[in-house]
Amino acid sequence: MQYERDNIHRLEPYVPGEQPETGDVIKLNTNENPYPPAPAVLEAVRDLTGDALRRYPPPRAGRFRKLAAKLHNLAPEQVIATNGGDELLRLAITVFASPNRGVGGVGSTEPTYSLYPVLASIHDSNYYAVPLNDDFTLPGDFAPRLAEADCNLAFLVNPHAPSGRLFPLEQLRAIAGEFPGVLVIDEAYVNFAHTDALDLLRPPNAMKNVLILRTLSKGYSLAGIRFGYGLGDASLIAALDKARDSYNTSILSQTAAVAALENVEYAAANWQKVITERSRLTDALQQLGCFVYPSHTNFLLVIPPTTTSARTLYESLKKFSIFVRYFDQDRLRDKLRITIGTESQNNALIQALAELL
Amino acid sequence: MQYERDNIHRLEPYVPGEQPETGDVIKLNTNENPYPPAPAVLEAVRDLTGDALRRYPPPRAGRFRKLAAKLHNLAPEQVIATNGGDELLRLAITVFASPNRGVGGVGSTEPTYSLYPVLASIHDSNYYAVPLNDDFTLPGDFAPRLAEADCNLAFLVNPHAPSGRLFPLEQLRAIAGEFPGVLVIDEAYVNFAHTDALDLLRPPNAMKNVLILRTLSKGYSLAGIRFGYGLGDASLIAALDKARDSYNTSILSQTAAVAALENVEYAAANWQKVITERSRLTDALQQLGCFVYPSHTNFLLVIPPTTTSARTLYESLKKFSIFVRYFDQDRLRDKLRITIGTESQNNALIQALAELL
Repeated sequence: MQYERDNIHRLEPYVPGEQPETGDVIKLNTNENPYPPAPAVLEAVRDLTGDALRRYPPPRAGRFRKLAAKLHNLAPEQVIATNGGDELLRLAITVFASPNRGVGGVGSTEPTYSLYPVLASIHDSNYYAVPLNDDFTLPGDFAPRLAEADCNLAFLVNPHAPSGRLFPLEQLRAIAGEFPGVLVIDEAYVNFAHTDALDLLRPPNAMKNVLILRTLSKGYSLAGIRFGYGLGDASLIAALDKARDSYNTSILSQTAAVAALENVEYAAANWQKVITERSRLTDALQQLGCFVYPSHTNFLLVIPPTTTSARTLYESLKKFSIFVRYFDQDRLRDKLRITIGTESQNNALIQALAELL
Repeated sequence: MQYERDNIHRLEPYVPGEQPETGDVIKLNTNENPYPPAPAVLEAVRDLTGDALRRYPPPRAGRFRKLAAKLHNLAPEQVIATNGGDELLRLAITVFASPNRGVGGVGSTEPTYSLYPVLASIHDSNYYAVPLNDDFTLPGDFAPRLAEADCNLAFLVNPHAPSGRLFPLEQLRAIAGEFPGVLVIDEAYVNFAHTDALDLLRPPNAMKNVLILRTLSKGYSLAGIRFGYGLGDASLIAALDKARDSYNTSILSQTAAVAALENVEYAAANWQKVITERSRLTDALQQLGCFVYPSHTNFLLVIPPTTTSARTLYESLKKFSIFVRYFDQDRLRDKLRITIGTESQNNALIQALAELL
């Protein structure tokens, strides 16, 4: 007997990067920040009492919202806190995308963050992907093509995953203007770029259909706490807020997230370290004969020299206890996605590749 | 411009109980456990390192699942960990209920946990409620009526909220046998009852369409950490698992939850204290002229003496800094739902009522 809906029955679930149980590996496969979070984050969590754990948390994470609003020069009503950025993506689909195949749908690029089509399938939405250009730039007709495909929600991850490319702000503004539905700009990696899309939310040219996703997973070294947030017009945020699980973020995560934002300068120093290592690793990989896409993120998309297949290299690196990410899909089979590690992790990678290539 | 779907636009969101910001109130309105969690829970959280927070958590909360399976004498494949029990409810709707009004739907009783119809509306499902009998027992034709209404998912909160009543196991088994869809038995309050429905999951008469909800919010004094879980046939759990957000529980919550279950005897001592206070408070309220429904939970449903309206009493208690819950809906307007507090909190309540009644 099958109880689940057909779309769930057919669903190929999202496959997260491997999380090896032993600590003795160099883990460059899930774009975690290689540096620990600000000590104040742990201190704040350790200060929590049993009484705080006993009670329901503030349902809307009020303290966090105020703090994020201040950091980004927006109003608290323009902020929603979520259980990781992934919850915001799901909420956007729940709230803005039609659940019935045949009418409306969700659009993105190809390639893109591989969770988007999975979330669309869970909602039983149509999903339409516009292929990026060969160099992973956005085609000029992205918005009209999604509109023609009747999409009412579009996802753009920017800086782009898995290419690392940054789409220009004015192109995003043009897309938001042309696209008739809600445009989600997924800025999961924005802390490693030199610019962001917040200007699209600010007067006098604020776009009412733009939702920006942020997460503490990468920039703040807090993938473990599951905390993300959305920024947008107050009306979009209010609609998302209605569809949230009633207490969607825990007091533990809220407390850690508040401390993280209060210590943004600590995180910012880590962003700079990642950017410095990114540059050094790019150079080293190029010297080993790899093609490296210019990256505005904490990872690199790399084509190994033609003598070695990406998949073989991915398997071989595991023997050195180095995990990177391989995507068995069109346009990515010849490439590896490698998270920027610490200096010593990157050195170990370079050394292993020097032996293997 | 309205971007959200019509069902979201129309939605009256769930209203959680008030969470007063000051600590100087007696909070008997959201069914929190009045006693703090086991000290080992805080210790486990305090032992977490920055490195643990930096990494993505185990996506399926493997340690917790094994532990919960052992506690309940089930297999780990029969357990799913969720971001509070609320996430399990939402997942059940996502996975098992049709999103199109007109075909299928979600069924429950009236009254019931007020989140169910809200979650059904978010999914744009039909919602069908069978009124309980006057004494809040279940009508014998509950299952056939839901089947006739074409429901493919049914929610029963047992012990029942807001009445506190416990439906007998054999009645639940009969309903599961008659109902053609998935029956969710929401055991949020089961730790304060003398029996549970786990027998429905055990051979030789295991019901393949029964999903049992548990939460650490009430029984383990951990409403703040947002951790619940589902128990059921491995095929139901696998289907739910596909629709989960990819990392739905944080390393903070997983760590706390594991420690809580490892110290179940600490929690069990608190259950006993609540049960003892429940009995004492029931007697005292009866002596004050109230009608008190027999409760198997950590709250009481109370009808004040006919000389006082429940709403007035609810407002008057606030002046004593005592918060209880008032539901402005049919069959509940003449009642108050009062969470069992500590001995001194209950004494303060009794004293205030003695003045007011």
